[in-house]
Amino acid sequence: MYISKLFLPILKNNPSEAKIKSHQLMLRVGMIKQSSAGIYSWLPLGFKVMKKIEKIVREEQNKIGAQEILMPTIQSSEIWKESGRYEDYGEEMLRIKDRQNREMLYGPTNEELVTDIFRSSIKSYKSLPQLLYHIQWKFRDEIRPRFGIMRCREFYMKDAYSFDVSDDEALFSYNKFFLSYLKTFNRLDLTAIPMAADTGPIGGNLSHEFIILAETGESKIFTDKRIFDLSIKNEKLEKKSLENMRKKYENYYSVTDEKFNKEEFEKKVLSENRLITKGIEVGHIFYFGDKYSKSMGASVDLSGGKKDFVKMGSYGIGVSRLVGAIIEAKYDDKQEVMKWPISIAPYDISIIPMISKNDSSALEKANNIATELQNNKIEVIIDDTEENFSSKIKKMNLIGAPYQIIIGKQTDGDLIEFKEVGKDSQNLKLKDIIKLIIEQKAKN
Amino acid sequence: MYISKLFLPILKNNPSEAKIKSHQLMLRVGMIKQSSAGIYSWLPLGFKVMKKIEKIVREEQNKIGAQEILMPTIQSSEIWKESGRYEDYGEEMLRIKDRQNREMLYGPTNEELVTDIFRSSIKSYKSLPQLLYHIQWKFRDEIRPRFGIMRCREFYMKDAYSFDVSDDEALFSYNKFFLSYLKTFNRLDLTAIPMAADTGPIGGNLSHEFIILAETGESKIFTDKRIFDLSIKNEKLEKKSLENMRKKYENYYSVTDEKFNKEEFEKKVLSENRLITKGIEVGHIFYFGDKYSKSMGASVDLSGGKKDFVKMGSYGIGVSRLVGAIIEAKYDDKQEVMKWPISIAPYDISIIPMISKNDSSALEKANNIATELQNNKIEVIIDDTEENFSSKIKKMNLIGAPYQIIIGKQTDGDLIEFKEVGKDSQNLKLKDIIKLIIEQKAKN
Repeated sequence: MYISKLFLPILKNNPSEAKIKSHQLMLRVGMIKQSSAGIYSWLPLGFKVMKKIEKIVREEQNKIGAQEILMPTIQSSEIWKESGRYEDYGEEMLRIKDRQNREMLYGPTNEELVTDIFRSSIKSYKSLPQLLYHIQWKFRDEIRPRFGIMRCREFYMKDAYSFDVSDDEALFSYNKFFLSYLKTFNRLDLTAIPMAADTGPIGGNLSHEFIILAETGESKIFTDKRIFDLSIKNEKLEKKSLENMRKKYENYYSVTDEKFNKEEFEKKVLSENRLITKGIEVGHIFYFGDKYSKSMGASVDLSGGKKDFVKMGSYGIGVSRLVGAIIEAKYDDKQEVMKWPISIAPYDISIIPMISKNDSSALEKANNIATELQNNKIEVIIDDTEENFSSKIKKMNLIGAPYQIIIGKQTDGDLIEFKEVGKDSQNLKLKDIIKLIIEQKAKN
Repeated sequence: MYISKLFLPILKNNPSEAKIKSHQLMLRVGMIKQSSAGIYSWLPLGFKVMKKIEKIVREEQNKIGAQEILMPTIQSSEIWKESGRYEDYGEEMLRIKDRQNREMLYGPTNEELVTDIFRSSIKSYKSLPQLLYHIQWKFRDEIRPRFGIMRCREFYMKDAYSFDVSDDEALFSYNKFFLSYLKTFNRLDLTAIPMAADTGPIGGNLSHEFIILAETGESKIFTDKRIFDLSIKNEKLEKKSLENMRKKYENYYSVTDEKFNKEEFEKKVLSENRLITKGIEVGHIFYFGDKYSKSMGASVDLSGGKKDFVKMGSYGIGVSRLVGAIIEAKYDDKQEVMKWPISIAPYDISIIPMISKNDSSALEKANNIATELQNNKIEVIIDDTEENFSSKIKKMNLIGAPYQIIIGKQTDGDLIEFKEVGKDSQNLKLKDIIKLIIEQKAKN
């Protein structure tokens, strides 16, 4: 794809209104455009990244047997009155009156709506467990939206809900999502630490946040470094092994400042293992038993003939937020170099040919190389403009394809100047470049 | 996938509130659930179909060089005041005040927002044409929502926008979408007729609706039968050939009742070619020149140094509506048999084994067959319940996978009872079944 044909409005300098690096980069390189306070449009470059993140999130939900549905953005206030949250939720809920003067709202979360769907559909314990998820826009009317899409009003979120017959089964579901989240963040090349968390307006008594490390994060975190050595490679979807997995993580002290206790931290963690830094929340899971099923009457027939309220949990990943969180974790704003993980990069490789008015031979070479790459399902962006080399490279460093090919006047023969962003360039044959990229892509 | 594990709440009978067959089937077979007036949740079966339709719509947009973006659902009233449509739009627009008392709205369409994105990004004719599209939820506050998702309030729509330097170039863009729409509907196994249409609240002086034939359609249509013989197989994305293609279609009289003129119809169409029937609108395209670019100041620098307002068109396909429209076109509600086109079927094939308490050998056979099919990327649903044969077949006929395999007690050896829905069953080897389905899928 030629850069000149893309809808890719790149700014010369960082926009002054952006205070954190994800916001800076996303505006700078035309990933998003603000449409009103805390509300953004996603332009092609940002949209591509978000869609790739969504795909990975979806695949990992499907792997644990969750089924995808899609609930609407606009909800009736009735079900929120049933659960008792309509008044509690406060001003962050965007309340709406329709033309018939009915009280509606833009869903900030979906516990009520999914419970309503469940109760009208599932009647027997035999149909449990049920894991349902959707990926849909939410709205929370932040009083002071800021930091671009990191703290905005309209955001894209995956939220899942589990329904089980007993606490024991429900914790099995909880642990499935726990594993699924660790796998999801791994595939995004992020190290996310699960941390015991408060439950806030969702409710319940068991909750974990998944936090990635980033100096610019909004949460202060206190953790035991040894947690980074844990591996989930061989975990299976079995009750006992998932229980052990969660225990392994819970063995290490790891909390945000809202749960921090200095004495406990110093008692449990040797000083050489203590890590105090900042992080960004990218996922949050909750177990809240019958909090909603009881108030909304979602029960099933048990095997003995009795009825009981189902036990529920909910599980959120901020899909749009992850785009920003990954930039916070990966973008070197001093050097102005972004390197997207290949699993979600908008392009796998950028080709930078030296072009002048009278000589387009390098562009021809670029086209030939691009064709070969595309035949191998490698996504390419070519800078077909007549700008000078250094400004072309600067631009591609912002766009963030993890690999680059540079074609100068002298490029000839079999060997091509190839660079993995952040490493030295080397001269390789095209077939070796293709092999290398295919191998990297296959890892995800 | 076992039917007992799916979130698939099937009703024994048609729900009394549903007046048309798409609404009946979608509620009956658990594709959707109403959450409030004119607002629906999509359950797994409906969601799968809608996503497959979305994918085809997206692929055909990409093929004509349109770039995907994603605009938010909530818009500021400011840009609608600029275009002059804020007051005009009437009560169908869902108007909202946020906590700061700012006037917002849930986008019913996106001409204003996309023009705002364009004007802040593109400055030169050299960057034209630009074709941008997004697939996003819209809201129109219908006074009387009815017919399920066919006339609902929150709906899923692909809307595209073209930006060109001149009327001539803009018509080229218009014709690209014209072709793209015909191809999209072909891939959905629909015959859509383009009909000259009024422009309504979008504006402009050139517009076509794409209408599919269905007895239950809301529009009366008057057409020349010969239009069905036109083919777009060999059309290329070239200005002249696209112009000729559109002319070919326009040569045949074809209008809805809003544009109907009896005298003209009878003059232009021989009586043996006249077809008067009903149809459903599934797409609508508009050319409106500088209607929005002028009022909102979206201009580009021309080659001579002057500036001019860009020429725009917009192009909509109702993605959620298509699910219903396809049911209206394909569902035999007398026999209670649905056959989804294989390009968008929720499952390619259903396997119906005869299972009793003491004999699950047929289920084992079903599992083995399913594994083999899935290895060939064929999507399978197995009825693993102990219901009787006839109620199982009834259920699968509603779910609508286009092929069925039936495994009775006697099934043995190489030959399998295989049925294309609506045709006689035959005994085939598994490898021939696989070959047949792969061939059918490859056609799309």
